[in-house]
Amino acid sequence: MKCRICKKEAIVKLKHYNLPLCEEHFYEFFEKRVKKAIGKFGMFSNDDRILVAVSGGKDSMVVWYVLRKLGYEADGLFIRLGNGENIDKTQEMIKDFAKDIGGNLIVEDATRYLYGLSTFEATRVLRRSACSFCGMVKRYLMNKVAVEMGYDVLATGHNLDDEASQLLGNILHWQKGYVLRSWPVLEKTHEKFVKKVKPLVLNYEDDIKLYAEMRKIPFLKETCPFSIGATSKVYKKMLSVLESDQRGAMLSFYMGYIREKDDFFKKDEESVNLNSCEICGYPTTSKVCYFCRSREKLRERLGRKRGTIEG
Amino acid sequence: MKCRICKKEAIVKLKHYNLPLCEEHFYEFFEKRVKKAIGKFGMFSNDDRILVAVSGGKDSMVVWYVLRKLGYEADGLFIRLGNGENIDKTQEMIKDFAKDIGGNLIVEDATRYLYGLSTFEATRVLRRSACSFCGMVKRYLMNKVAVEMGYDVLATGHNLDDEASQLLGNILHWQKGYVLRSWPVLEKTHEKFVKKVKPLVLNYEDDIKLYAEMRKIPFLKETCPFSIGATSKVYKKMLSVLESDQRGAMLSFYMGYIREKDDFFKKDEESVNLNSCEICGYPTTSKVCYFCRSREKLRERLGRKRGTIEG
Repeated sequence: MKCRICKKEAIVKLKHYNLPLCEEHFYEFFEKRVKKAIGKFGMFSNDDRILVAVSGGKDSMVVWYVLRKLGYEADGLFIRLGNGENIDKTQEMIKDFAKDIGGNLIVEDATRYLYGLSTFEATRVLRRSACSFCGMVKRYLMNKVAVEMGYDVLATGHNLDDEASQLLGNILHWQKGYVLRSWPVLEKTHEKFVKKVKPLVLNYEDDIKLYAEMRKIPFLKETCPFSIGATSKVYKKMLSVLESDQRGAMLSFYMGYIREKDDFFKKDEESVNLNSCEICGYPTTSKVCYFCRSREKLRERLGRKRGTIEG
Repeated sequence: MKCRICKKEAIVKLKHYNLPLCEEHFYEFFEKRVKKAIGKFGMFSNDDRILVAVSGGKDSMVVWYVLRKLGYEADGLFIRLGNGENIDKTQEMIKDFAKDIGGNLIVEDATRYLYGLSTFEATRVLRRSACSFCGMVKRYLMNKVAVEMGYDVLATGHNLDDEASQLLGNILHWQKGYVLRSWPVLEKTHEKFVKKVKPLVLNYEDDIKLYAEMRKIPFLKETCPFSIGATSKVYKKMLSVLESDQRGAMLSFYMGYIREKDDFFKKDEESVNLNSCEICGYPTTSKVCYFCRSREKLRERLGRKRGTIEG
């Protein structure tokens, strides 16, 4: 098996492209796709200060690594969703990695907003579904930290599989609002809403894993223990059925969306009105944002006094 | 297990609805869904003369049976796609069935349009893909016979799985024209284009099979030997992954399409212009229809003289 580019011995064969490559040209191919996404969607320029949301999983570690390798000023943000040894270890791993790649690491502690509870404990008290509540808390805090610390862009590790499967799920349930907003860039539409970008949107999850392994980038092998049975998995499974029948179909489905979206779907007539939350000032479609409403309810359920964030 | 309606012993459990039913109430449930489709989409009225395209498979046999049972004047049309013992046997089976249910059976022979070849043999000569060519010939002849014999409507056995999987495939490949025309009724838009309807569009394939078996309706067990690897299968497989995770999701995806289509998708700006084929007079978007062009090419390849249909 020879590398398609240089004809030297290939070390990988990318199954989604049926493409044998040597180590050097695999890195080049992979990083080119990241560059392509950044350019095609106007994610950021060399002058922008980028904050990368880093969970310790392969996607976020890789996106941080590649952005720094491409010369961008990219720092990391780790949100502690609870306490305990595992989370300490993850934080240690990310801290060491930050040193290796020369970026700053910011650590935010979600539990101080949740009266000391982990996001999982809080969902129990609030009787919410774990994934959606935890996701909301992460999004809120990522945005808050990026805004407060003056970053221009927040980058996340969402990959092609994530985006394509989410799009498929939203189409299957006819969620037009979500379908229209499935874009790899969310522009700044409120003074306290930082621009969000997904630089790995053109990279298959399999290739990201391969890249992490070959570059010896450390990452958490386990997925979140609370995400077992997450509904998003079924859409990934559907797309893997498609992909094994039609090579490259996941990418071509997603690129079709990028190309056809405006011709295919009717625009929503009413645009979503973003207000400033009466409590925290961050954007919301209601009067008080969902984060603050959840904190309020948590406080009531726990029988705590209204107080400072740490209260 | 008790029947959900009458509390007598249930004989089936419909897995897509999690619904145990006795024999009587299963028939009622099943036929009600056909009635619902006929009414909801305005397929036909009691005065209409209906021609049912009957291949001998479970879907077409069941739709013919149910339409007659509901009191409609429904005749059958069997198109011989080739010659040979199997086809003779199928024709015999359908002829006997027609007698049982009291409908007329019309038999049309596709080979007399194809210089004696079967549709499969013709695709070899024409170097076309078997399924798409054979489907085109069937659609052409079904329409032709219905028009010539003065039927008001042509009914086919397409079921929920067929329609939902085709819709999914068209969405995954961003085929907007097809997505917009995936409707269970095609109106008469040309003097030689008969209205087409799909009365089983709200019935799951599994339930149709069950209905055929319980009613002892004869049908061909084998699927077409040339359809192995048909691309439509992968979309059915994807939907069965979805359905086994979310019961009823296939129906709800399809009903969502019915409900949301006009709000969801932009209309095509240019409407398709239907001409009359210069050779046969049947509708086409070109000057000469695809059926006549194929016959012409076949004639050339076979070195035959231009002649009558039987030539």
